Amino acid sequence: MGIHTYFRSLNDLERIIRCPGKFKFEEHSVAAHSWKVVQYAKTLADIEEKHGVTVDWKKLYEITSSHDYGEIFIGDIKTPVKHYSLELRSMLQKVEEGMVEHFIEGNIPEEFKPIFRRQLREGKDQSVEGLILEVADKLDQVYEAFAELQRGNSEKEFVVMYRNALVKIKNIRLHCVDYFLQNILPDIVNDGMSSTIDIKSITEEALAL
Amino acid sequence: MGIHTYFRSLNDLERIIRCPGKFKFEEHSVAAHSWKVVQYAKTLADIEEKHGVTVDWKKLYEITSSHDYGEIFIGDIKTPVKHYSLELRSMLQKVEEGMVEHFIEGNIPEEFKPIFRRQLREGKDQSVEGLILEVADKLDQVYEAFAELQRGNSEKEFVVMYRNALVKIKNIRLHCVDYFLQNILPDIVNDGMSSTIDIKSITEEALAL
Amino acid sequence: MGIHTYFRSLNDLERIIRCPGKFKFEEHSVAAHSWKVVQYAKTLADIEEKHGVTVDWKKLYEITSSHDYGEIFIGDIKTPVKHYSLELRSMLQKVEEGMVEHFIEGNIPEEFKPIFRRQLREGKDQSVEGLILEVADKLDQVYEAFAELQRGNSEKEFVVMYRNALVKIKNIRLHCVDYFLQNILPDIVNDGMSSTIDIKSITEEALAL
Amino acid sequence: MGIHTYFRSLNDLERIIRCPGKFKFEEHSVAAHSWKVVQYAKTLADIEEKHGVTVDWKKLYEITSSHDYGEIFIGDIKTPVKHYSLELRSMLQKVEEGMVEHFIEGNIPEEFKPIFRRQLREGKDQSVEGLILEVADKLDQVYEAFAELQRGNSEKEFVVMYRNALVKIKNIRLHCVDYFLQNILPDIVNDGMSSTIDIKSITEEALAL
Amino acid sequence: MGIHTYFRSLNDLERIIRCPGKFKFEEHSVAAHSWKVVQYAKTLADIEEKHGVTVDWKKLYEITSSHDYGEIFIGDIKTPVKHYSLELRSMLQKVEEGMVEHFIEGNIPEEFKPIFRRQLREGKDQSVEGLILEVADKLDQVYEAFAELQRGNSEKEFVVMYRNALVKIKNIRLHCVDYFLQNILPDIVNDGMSSTIDIKSITEEALAL
Amino acid sequence: MGIHTYFRSLNDLERIIRCPGKFKFEEHSVAAHSWKVVQYAKTLADIEEKHGVTVDWKKLYEITSSHDYGEIFIGDIKTPVKHYSLELRSMLQKVEEGMVEHFIEGNIPEEFKPIFRRQLREGKDQSVEGLILEVADKLDQVYEAFAELQRGNSEKEFVVMYRNALVKIKNIRLHCVDYFLQNILPDIVNDGMSSTIDIKSITEEALAL
Repeated sequence: MGIHTYFRSLNDLERIIRCPGKFKFEEHSVAAHSWKVVQYAKTLADIEEKHGVTVDWKKLYEITSSHDYGEIFIGDIKTPVKHYSLELRSMLQKVEEGMVEHFIEGNIPEEFKPIFRRQLREGKDQSVEGLILEVADKLDQVYEAFAELQRGNSEKEFVVMYRNALVKIKNIRLHCVDYFLQNILPDIVNDGMSSTIDIKSITEEALAL
Repeated sequence: MGIHTYFRSLNDLERIIRCPGKFKFEEHSVAAHSWKVVQYAKTLADIEEKHGVTVDWKKLYEITSSHDYGEIFIGDIKTPVKHYSLELRSMLQKVEEGMVEHFIEGNIPEEFKPIFRRQLREGKDQSVEGLILEVADKLDQVYEAFAELQRGNSEKEFVVMYRNALVKIKNIRLHCVDYFLQNILPDIVNDGMSSTIDIKSITEEALAL
Repeated sequence: MGIHTYFRSLNDLERIIRCPGKFKFEEHSVAAHSWKVVQYAKTLADIEEKHGVTVDWKKLYEITSSHDYGEIFIGDIKTPVKHYSLELRSMLQKVEEGMVEHFIEGNIPEEFKPIFRRQLREGKDQSVEGLILEVADKLDQVYEAFAELQRGNSEKEFVVMYRNALVKIKNIRLHCVDYFLQNILPDIVNDGMSSTIDIKSITEEALAL
Repeated sequence: MGIHTYFRSLNDLERIIRCPGKFKFEEHSVAAHSWKVVQYAKTLADIEEKHGVTVDWKKLYEITSSHDYGEIFIGDIKTPVKHYSLELRSMLQKVEEGMVEHFIEGNIPEEFKPIFRRQLREGKDQSVEGLILEVADKLDQVYEAFAELQRGNSEKEFVVMYRNALVKIKNIRLHCVDYFLQNILPDIVNDGMSSTIDIKSITEEALAL
Repeated sequence: MGIHTYFRSLNDLERIIRCPGKFKFEEHSVAAHSWKVVQYAKTLADIEEKHGVTVDWKKLYEITSSHDYGEIFIGDIKTPVKHYSLELRSMLQKVEEGMVEHFIEGNIPEEFKPIFRRQLREGKDQSVEGLILEVADKLDQVYEAFAELQRGNSEKEFVVMYRNALVKIKNIRLHCVDYFLQNILPDIVNDGMSSTIDIKSITEEALAL
Repeated sequence: MGIHTYFRSLNDLERIIRCPGKFKFEEHSVAAHSWKVVQYAKTLADIEEKHGVTVDWKKLYEITSSHDYGEIFIGDIKTPVKHYSLELRSMLQKVEEGMVEHFIEGNIPEEFKPIFRRQLREGKDQSVEGLILEVADKLDQVYEAFAELQRGNSEKEFVVMYRNALVKIKNIRLHCVDYFLQNILPDIVNDGMSSTIDIKSITEEALAL
């Protein structure tokens, strides 16, 4: 009961492993993923600002850092389920939101409830900050999958993850997406040239979609 | 495509960790849990047979060994969700069953489909075998939680798990439950006397419910 | 003392790692291996039944689930020793059997002793069930070694394990072996085509022996 | 070369373990620690805002998320060294800063260099944001050490870490520190009552300093 | 074939875990154990030299560093087996020695064979160096078991290991044993005073035997 | 205080991982590394003796077994720092030496201080023993990096480590270096032929420097 319960619960996300069940050479916790998303988003927002876009840093801070907090309750299961059925995905999202609300109701002091409801909401709306979060979140899928492919992991899961994340990113209209496609993605592809898996072709195919 | 896909998928359950997110001194995979349930169930069924009960060993084999196969798709998330809401629990079960059916439909050869549909069904019905599975499954929660309590793990989660599993077991009318309560549980409690957590009281309180 | 001691000891097999000392990308506990053997055997027995063979499911249950229980006492060491000398192998087997008997004598209640002696015996006899266990046990070596080869593990150990297990399987006269050779093994080989190790040639060479 | 090199390097901080060499029941990566600091700082800043203090969220974002990036180069070694000698500590800090500058110079595109120099600077100045970072960073030491003490870890290291972090926090004049001392710390102490280590006394002693 | 095969095999002992199957808060590889034995033996030999005893450092070097090399072949299984039966223990030792000889015969160049046969022999004879090795080896059991007891591990295994190792040490007539009993063991006991397990009584009981 | 503090501290080096932060398929502790260096040095010294060189085994024992003890205090950070600047490297070495002296001063009994000062000194001087230590230490870098390259790890770090260690070794004038270059290195290269990384070329390039 109280902020202590919330602060202590953060530790749980260090023990929730992303993409559970699949073989990977390196595991990633939701906590570490969340930090990388915060970091990517910061640089992506810097690029937007360079192009004169105004960024609401408080909002960006709130939605990137907490975007996966709800996984404390149901784990990291959305990706495979999403591939299976949109209806099931929305059912799971309702469960997650219900448990987050249940947690706030039962643990957060009255004066903080509105703040926590805002921070732990789904942040991926159509605002600049919401779109940056979407790009940053997918960017981490790109990097996670890329590292596995580069080391020769042949689980289909990671080819699908890499490709789908790229397709998602390239369809978002942000200056930072342009920068990514022109300046970062070529370095990624180049970095993966020695892999036994043909990352270049997978990338080109995804961009052509 | 084919039995190979199914056989290979078993490996995934070695990587799904039970009770994810909670601190524990020792982790357990769904695969290892499944094996222990198979073992407990065998001895529990032996006890039933000693009392003249007829056991359908083929059915017992099928339902114990596969009882958590569906966790390949959505992970080990039912316990905390169940504590939260029965409605949500039933939603999740539908997702799991949908994905199991989807897997059978897409991967299992036609001639094996009826067998797999039977084996991967929920096995906890009111038959002797279904009840033995329920006892064996809860028994592993008793042992998992007990080992954490004995080592001084003070996460409330494990007190709740230990107690709830005991309550569930004691309300099942089987000869093996009597044997467990009279011959096994006292040894468990005795084994835990040196713990900093008062396992004896927790046990007595659960039995009194 | 008592069934509790036996139930609790099962946990030990979650900590015994198969093929200790050798580098592998993924480790497997004896508990997880035992569960996979139980699962393979179930499907293998289903295939036998489809061909009109009668399967004693109770016996199959007993011998598959407990077939490596004795490794609690001396660990997973038989394979490299077996390669070295058959005499040494038989010495080790005697040690293991001696310690299993010692455990039963000292811990299992009188009324259960005959049951445990039967269940913890070596199950690989010439009955259908004994042969199915042999195939299922070797099948897990095939899958364990295959996964390492597929990921590029060049330790000779795994080529030898894969090949020897295949040779052993193909010489057993069961309907399920025919099914494996015609319907499952080709999918395995196909699955491994992207590996830097030539799994196809290793397989063909083994089958030609 | 380029932002890719920076983005990819973030992964390294998932592999740097805090407080290396000391026994702990649970390890924490610098990446996970960084995320928790981001989260604490957000709530601490919310408390400041409730008291009418203006928070520069962009600055807070930058300094909290990157505050340990330099550990990529020299690891997490400052604490024990600091205890030993302030001079040595300042030598190490210079090494770290030199390597960060070297990294920016060699990898970050010209147009981003000023941004990265600002973001990867030491952020713990006397501004509200700098002080919030200091509190948040120490708060994670409190939680890390607390969890070890609660589980019975008797390494002196963690008593020292817990106490020193508390002393540091209580001497910082911020509204959120008052809130922490009055509303959060009592819950922490209460949470630790079942431990074999007397966390309450250690806490009271630290507060009395 | 050749020294390369031997050098590379050393890596295997980093993957063989001591006391496999038993729960422990911290695992130890045979490689790390071997290094600690080398270190203890060095200080123990220093103590002997202070008392005027002549130490053959080359012999001490050879026997301490290689004393568990044979575990590459059969793992760390002697302790529980030894507790069970001396006859079985001697059978296992023969297996180990047979496999070491087999390894030397098949891999070590002719000119090095006598050296390797000497170095990989059982070193625990009645010479000063052999006795120092025995003390150092048991001392690591004392420290391994002590650390588990201190953290509250209640597996009987570690009480037995701690006690038996102490009894073994105190019966060896060396100056360094006197030093250990008078100057080191009291510090160990004192270090363990906060444990929930009564290490002091266990120690006193062992010394009284 | 006392030898107990020193003996117990050895355990810390089992938890310090070499080359922290970089991705590797297999981690190595400083303790395990130290043991392998002890083992390599023994065989290298045997080769020197075969050529009539006199080896001081006591000195060799002391300097090889303790050569990385100082990493208890500052971890395994020298390699990347060294690549960056020789001045920074020497600063770090002073920190390490300062902390070792501080440890001896505060913990080691008066009568042992001279012994510990000698043993925990930097051992890599121009004596035969100092040179053998240097070769053995670099040899472990060769083997560590080789194993990663062989398994397809494409982190530049390991190519650099392998090459630099080889260059360092080949410039040391010892009989055992000749033996290594003529008899061991060819076996290493041959062992790595199946890797996706061209170890042979990297080796030849290094030898040509």
